[in-house]
Amino acid sequence: MNREEQWLLPDGVDEILPERAAVIERLRRRLLDLYARWGYELVFPPLIEYLESLLNGAGRDLERETFKLTDQLTGRMMGVRADLTPQVARIDAHSLRRSGPSRLCYCSSALRTRPPLPGATRAPYQIGLELFGHAGVDSDAEVISLMLTTLLAAGVRGITLDLGHVGIYRTLVRDSELSEDDEQALSDLYLRKARVELDAFFAERRVSAATAAALSALPWLAGADALQRARPLIEAANPAALVKLDELAEQVARVQDAFPDVRVHVDLGELRGYRYHTGCIFAAYVDGGSEPFAKGGRYDRIGEVFGRARPATGFSADLKLLAACQPSAPLPRAILAPAGADASLRQELARLRDAGERVVQALAGVDSDPAELCCDRQLVPEGAGWKVIPLSS
Amino acid sequence: MNREEQWLLPDGVDEILPERAAVIERLRRRLLDLYARWGYELVFPPLIEYLESLLNGAGRDLERETFKLTDQLTGRMMGVRADLTPQVARIDAHSLRRSGPSRLCYCSSALRTRPPLPGATRAPYQIGLELFGHAGVDSDAEVISLMLTTLLAAGVRGITLDLGHVGIYRTLVRDSELSEDDEQALSDLYLRKARVELDAFFAERRVSAATAAALSALPWLAGADALQRARPLIEAANPAALVKLDELAEQVARVQDAFPDVRVHVDLGELRGYRYHTGCIFAAYVDGGSEPFAKGGRYDRIGEVFGRARPATGFSADLKLLAACQPSAPLPRAILAPAGADASLRQELARLRDAGERVVQALAGVDSDPAELCCDRQLVPEGAGWKVIPLSS
Repeated sequence: MNREEQWLLPDGVDEILPERAAVIERLRRRLLDLYARWGYELVFPPLIEYLESLLNGAGRDLERETFKLTDQLTGRMMGVRADLTPQVARIDAHSLRRSGPSRLCYCSSALRTRPPLPGATRAPYQIGLELFGHAGVDSDAEVISLMLTTLLAAGVRGITLDLGHVGIYRTLVRDSELSEDDEQALSDLYLRKARVELDAFFAERRVSAATAAALSALPWLAGADALQRARPLIEAANPAALVKLDELAEQVARVQDAFPDVRVHVDLGELRGYRYHTGCIFAAYVDGGSEPFAKGGRYDRIGEVFGRARPATGFSADLKLLAACQPSAPLPRAILAPAGADASLRQELARLRDAGERVVQALAGVDSDPAELCCDRQLVPEGAGWKVIPLSS
Repeated sequence: MNREEQWLLPDGVDEILPERAAVIERLRRRLLDLYARWGYELVFPPLIEYLESLLNGAGRDLERETFKLTDQLTGRMMGVRADLTPQVARIDAHSLRRSGPSRLCYCSSALRTRPPLPGATRAPYQIGLELFGHAGVDSDAEVISLMLTTLLAAGVRGITLDLGHVGIYRTLVRDSELSEDDEQALSDLYLRKARVELDAFFAERRVSAATAAALSALPWLAGADALQRARPLIEAANPAALVKLDELAEQVARVQDAFPDVRVHVDLGELRGYRYHTGCIFAAYVDGGSEPFAKGGRYDRIGEVFGRARPATGFSADLKLLAACQPSAPLPRAILAPAGADASLRQELARLRDAGERVVQALAGVDSDPAELCCDRQLVPEGAGWKVIPLSS
C-alpha cells in the first residue's frame, strides 16, 4: 500500500469539504426550523449504546448493520447506532414519558457495517422525525406531509411516493394461523416475488381459500388500480385487513389532495427494507432511482420493549443525499485585513464582524491569496482610522 | 439485569433531551457563524477511517482512546474518531492542498474508549477550528482569541487561560542529545513532577550543566513570575529555546491586552494532555475546575505524515460542556390547531408557519394537552376562515 492509498477512505465513507459542507449546514438549519414550526423538538440520541438497548425491538436487519464495540469499562457489548428511529422511540418511552402525543426530530450521523445498496453510503447524516402517541391516518398524514415538504425544501423535484401498508399483510398472516416457520418462509417468497412457489406454498397449507387468494395476489397488487383490485379480495378474506386497506385509501386521497405534483404509487406487496414497521409505509423516489430520498412508516410495536407501548410513525432521510439536490452556495465575499494586533485594528475587526462581514486577517510572513480566501475588498488605514476599499487586482 | 438497568446508557455517554438540545443547537449555530465571520470554513470529517490514516501522526494517547472496528468489506481495521484535529489536518494536507493559509472549523461527535477524567464524557460533541499554513505568533493569537470569544459567547465567566510552550521543552531535549529511552523517561518524570528523581536523572546523564539546570527547573516554572525566572536559565542553556520563550511572552502580552478580564497563568512545565503539540499550548479553565472548557495549541509536525508539512494551530471544546453554561431557552409558545385536512385549514396552517409561528395540530381521537405542547393560543374557525385566539384555560 503506497502513501496515497493509505489515506483513501473506506468504501461508503466520505469527508465533506467546505463547499458541500456549507450547503449541508444551510439545509440542516432550514429543515430543523421547519420541523420546529410544526411542533417537533430536537433531540440528540447517543452515538453508542449497549447492544440490548440499541437493537431491542429493531429486528434482525439492524443487528447485521450495526458495528459492535466492547466497553472497556464494563466488558459489555455496545453498538454504534445504524438508525436513529429506535433510539428516539426509547427516548419517548423511557426518558420523556409524556401523556399526550410527542413530536421529536433529529439530525445526527449513523453508521452501517454495509451499504444498503452498492455505492450507497455507510455513514448517513440522518435527518428525520417521529410522532408518538397517535394511531391513525392523521399522524401518518402529518409525517408524510413533512417528508414531502422536506424534499421540496431541498429542491427535489419529480417525486414519486410509494405508499403501502404492512398491516394488511400482517393481519392476513396473523389470522391465517401459520406457524412461525411458515411465516418466515412466506415473507421470503414475498421478498423474492416467487409466484409459482407462492401458489405451491398455499396448496400445501391449511389456510382458508379466501385468505390464500388474497395473500397470493398481494405481491402483484401495485399501481393505479391496486386499491380497487385489492378490495374484493381482502373483503372476502378478512374484515380487519379491510380496515387497513381503507386507511391506505384515505392516505392516498390526502396526499393527492395536498401534493398534486407528487405521483403516488400504491404497492401492497412491498415488504423489503421495512424493518420494524407495522402499518402505513412510504418512500419517496425520483425518476426511477433505486435508492429512496426519504422513507418511513408506522411502527406501533417498537415502544413496547422499552417499557411502554406507544403508537409511532416517522420518516428519515440522508441529509447528504438531499443536499446534493441543492445549488452550491458561493462563500460570501470577504474583506482582507492587514496583520497586526493594535487596539484600533482589533476594534475595527470586531465592528465589521459584528455587522455580519466575513473578515480574514493576514498573517505576518506568509502571503494571503485574496482569490483563495474569496476576498473582494480590503481594510486599509485612513488617517487615525480604517476604511474598506475594493481590492486592487 | 432488570428491565430498567438494561436501558441505562454506558458511563460517559448521554442522550440529549429537547430542552438541552435546543440550547446546544442555538449555541452551535452562533459559534459556527462566528467562525465564518473570521474566515473559517466548515468541514465534516468522516466518523470512521482506516486506522493507519486516523492515528498517523497523532501519537500513542489517541490510539488507546480510539474504538476499533473491522471493515466487513475489506477486513481492514478502522477506527471511530476520538479527536477531529488530526482528521482536519489530513483534509488540509491531502484534500484541499491550498497554497496559502487555510482556516477550517467543525462541529461533530467524537468517541473515546475511556473518559479523560472520572465522570467526563466519552462522546463529546466536539467544536473547534484549525489554522494551517502559518508558523508564528499571529496565528496562535488568532486561535486563542477565537477560543476565548467562544467561551464568552457561551456565557463562560471567570476564565483562567493556561499558556505554555511545548517548543521550549522540545528544543532543550532535542539539543541535549538524550537517547530515545531517556527522552521517554524524562517526559514521565515531568508528568509526575518528580523533583528528586529528576535531579538524579541529570546527575547520571552527560547533559550540559546549563541544559540540566533549565530542564530540572522547567516543571516548576509556573505562575506570575515564570517568564522572568525562566529567562536567565534558558538564555544560558539554549538560544533556540529562548526564541520560543520570547514567542510565549509576546502571546501572554497579546492576550492580556485583548482580554483584560481573563486571568493568564503561564506554565512552562505542563506537558500533560498535549498529544501532538509542538509549540504554544493553551487551555481555558474556570474556578479551579480540573477539566478545561477548551484547549488547543500548535502542532506543526502532524501534516508531514499526510504528505505535506504545514504549520498548524487550533483549539477545540465540547459543545455540550459549553452549552451547560447557557441559560435554558423556553420553547416559543405555540398555537394549537384542530385536527383535519381540508384545504382552508391546510392553507391557514401553512400561512402561520411561513410567518414563523410554531403550530401544533391536534390528532383525531387523542387528547392534546396544551401545557405539555407549550401552546398558549388556539386556531378556531371564524365564518369561512380562521382566527387565532388565546387558549381558554
